[in-house]
Amino acid sequence: MPEGLAKGLRNVVLDETKASFIDGEKGILLYRGYSIHDLAASCSFEEVAYLMLYGSLPKRAELDAFEARLKAARRLPDEVVEVIRIVASSHPMDVLRTAVSALSAFDPETEDGSHEALLRKSERLTAQVPSIVAVHERLRKGRAPLQPRDGLNHAANFVYMLSGDEPSPEAVEAMNLDFILHAEHGANASSFAARVTASTLSDLHSAIASAVGTLKGPLHGGAAESVMKMAREIGEPERAAEYVRERQRHRESRIMGFGHRVYRVEDPRARHMREKSKALSARMGQQKWYDILEAVVREMGRYQRHGIHVNVDFYAGSVYYLLGIPEDLFVPIFAIGRVPGWCASVLEQLEDNVLIRPLLRYEGPMHLQYVPIDERR
Amino acid sequence: MPEGLAKGLRNVVLDETKASFIDGEKGILLYRGYSIHDLAASCSFEEVAYLMLYGSLPKRAELDAFEARLKAARRLPDEVVEVIRIVASSHPMDVLRTAVSALSAFDPETEDGSHEALLRKSERLTAQVPSIVAVHERLRKGRAPLQPRDGLNHAANFVYMLSGDEPSPEAVEAMNLDFILHAEHGANASSFAARVTASTLSDLHSAIASAVGTLKGPLHGGAAESVMKMAREIGEPERAAEYVRERQRHRESRIMGFGHRVYRVEDPRARHMREKSKALSARMGQQKWYDILEAVVREMGRYQRHGIHVNVDFYAGSVYYLLGIPEDLFVPIFAIGRVPGWCASVLEQLEDNVLIRPLLRYEGPMHLQYVPIDERR
Repeated sequence: MPEGLAKGLRNVVLDETKASFIDGEKGILLYRGYSIHDLAASCSFEEVAYLMLYGSLPKRAELDAFEARLKAARRLPDEVVEVIRIVASSHPMDVLRTAVSALSAFDPETEDGSHEALLRKSERLTAQVPSIVAVHERLRKGRAPLQPRDGLNHAANFVYMLSGDEPSPEAVEAMNLDFILHAEHGANASSFAARVTASTLSDLHSAIASAVGTLKGPLHGGAAESVMKMAREIGEPERAAEYVRERQRHRESRIMGFGHRVYRVEDPRARHMREKSKALSARMGQQKWYDILEAVVREMGRYQRHGIHVNVDFYAGSVYYLLGIPEDLFVPIFAIGRVPGWCASVLEQLEDNVLIRPLLRYEGPMHLQYVPIDERR
Repeated sequence: MPEGLAKGLRNVVLDETKASFIDGEKGILLYRGYSIHDLAASCSFEEVAYLMLYGSLPKRAELDAFEARLKAARRLPDEVVEVIRIVASSHPMDVLRTAVSALSAFDPETEDGSHEALLRKSERLTAQVPSIVAVHERLRKGRAPLQPRDGLNHAANFVYMLSGDEPSPEAVEAMNLDFILHAEHGANASSFAARVTASTLSDLHSAIASAVGTLKGPLHGGAAESVMKMAREIGEPERAAEYVRERQRHRESRIMGFGHRVYRVEDPRARHMREKSKALSARMGQQKWYDILEAVVREMGRYQRHGIHVNVDFYAGSVYYLLGIPEDLFVPIFAIGRVPGWCASVLEQLEDNVLIRPLLRYEGPMHLQYVPIDERR
C-alpha cells in the first residue's frame, strides 16, 4: 500500500465506545462489559437489546415495559407493506433497505434528533425490521402477510410471521441466540456507515438504511449464505477435504466463513453457533451438514495461516438451513440482530459528534488546459 | 480530543483519487485535472458528468451518445412513481433515498458489479435522480407528474419537470452551473459513505442510497437551505450587521454557509454562485437578497477567524430562491449534481477495494458479572 494511506482504515482508531469490547488476539467479546458467553447462555434477545440501547441489563419491570413497547411497534404501516409489495422481486436486503427508508415517512419522530426520540425510534426499528423481513418473505411466496402475535417474544414472533406455523422451541432458541451473537460488534462496516451518515446530523432512518445497504455486501454479511452454498456443493463429508484442497490450489477462490478483520484467534461467537449447529443437525437427523463443516475446518487446519479461523458466520448458515430458512434471508437475519448495535453506534456518535470526512491523495494530472468540445482530439 | 483518536478522520488520508484535486489552503479545485473555473465557464453538466465517469472530456460524438443514453434513462418505472406517491409526505431527501433504493428492484443490472455495468448504472442514476425530485415535487403539490422531454438537456428537463413551464434560459443556466459546481468533492461525508457501503462489495444502489441519506444532514448538504432561511429572517440589508453581531454574541448559534472542513480560504466554487446570485437578483428586481448576503459577509469579516470564509452553499440558496424553488429542494438539487461524483467514488473504491472498517477504543467497564434478571438491583 502506498505510504501514508489508511486504506480500509485498518489500524485507525476512530473514537471511543462503551458498547462492546473486542480483543481480537485473545478472542474476547464483551457487550457493555458482559461476556458474550454469559449473555448467550442466559439472556433473551430483548434483554441484550435493552442492554445495548440503555447501557445496563434491565430489571424485571424495565424488561416488561421494554417488551411491551417492542410488541406495540411490530406492526408495519399498511403503506410500508405496499412498498414491500412493489419491490418484492428484489433481494431481501434491497427490500429491507427500501422499507427501512420508507418507514421514515410514517415515524412520528423522524426529524427529532433528541436522545429520547432516538431511543424511541431505535426501539421501533428493532421491532419493525423482523416484520419487514417476514412480510416480504410471505409476499414474494404469494402468501398473505401475517400480523404479529403479542403472545410471542421477539425471536418467536419472527419465526411465526415467517412461516405461519407455531414456532418450535428449537427454532426460537436458535434464532434468539443468533440475534444475541449479532447484536453489536464495534466499528464493523455497517455500524461505521451508520456513524458516517449520522455524523452529518442526518436522521436515524437514514443511518440505519446506510447500515443495511452496507451489510448486504458479501465481505460483511454474506458469509453465512456462502458457507451453506459451499456445504451443499460439497454434498458429503468425505468430499470436504478434496474440495478444500482444490480451492487452496486456486488461490482466488477463498473458503468463506474463515478469517475476520479483527480476530486472530477463533471468533468467540463461533462456538455457540457450532454447538447449535451440532445439536440441530443431530436432532433433525441431518448430521451430514455439521460433519461437512467440521471436515472443512479440519482440512483448513492444514493450511492454517495466522488469523485464519472460523468466524460466527461459518456455522450460522447451517443453523438457518436446518430451520428451513431460504438462503437469501441469512443476511437479513443478521440485520435483525444487529439493529440495536447500529442504533447504539448512532447514539454514541451523536453524544460528541464530529463530521466524519477523511481526505484523499490526488494522483491524477494537474492543471489540464480546457479545450472546447469540437477541438478535442 | 483524547490521544490517538482520529475523530472525524480529520487528517486521515484514506486512499488515492484521480477524481478531484482540492487545495484547501490556496482554494483550488480541479475535476480530473481541469480547473473548476474553466468547467463552470464553458461546460454543460453532461460534459462534466462524462468527465467524472469516464475520466476525460467527451468528444462531440461521445457526448451525443452519452446524452442520448441519459435521455433514454430519465423516465422512472411506474412502480417507483407509486413508491414516491406513498412516501410523498416526507422530506424530499427521505423520498429521494427511498426512491433510489426502490430503483434497485427495477434496474436490470443491480447485482452486476462489473466495471461496465457500474458505468451503465451510474448513467441511469444520473438521469433518474432529477426525475425523482421533480416527480415528488409535483405529487406532493397534488399535480400530475410530468414525463421527461427529449428536446431538453439535463438542467432544462429538470426545471421543466419541476414546474411544467417552458424553462427560462436563466433558470437553465443557473441550474447547469449549480450541478457542475456540486459534481464532485473528494471524500466528503456522502461520497465517503458511498465508499464505505461499496467496500463490502454491496451494490451501487445501496452505495448511492447511503450517500443520499448522509447528504441530508445539516452539517453536509443543509447549508444552502439554512442561509436562505437566515436571509429571510434578516429581511432587509440594513438589519444584517445587527443580526450577525447578535449571533456572534451567542456562540452556539453559528452563521450557516461559512467555513468548510477543507478550505482555509474562500471555497473556489463560491464566486460562481455569488455572480449568479448577483445577476439573478438584479434581473429579477430583487436586489435585496444579494445585498443581505453581502452585508452578512462584510459583518462576518469583522469576526474573521482563520478558515471562516463563505462556502459554495452560501450563495446557492439565494439562487434557488430567486428561481422559485422550495427550500426543502435545495439539498436534493445538491444531490442531483453530486451523483456523478458519488458514482466515481464507488468506481475508484472498487478498483482496488479494501473493506473500510476502523477500530474503536473501549472505555467502558470490564468483565461485569452476569446477574440473573430477578436478582438485579
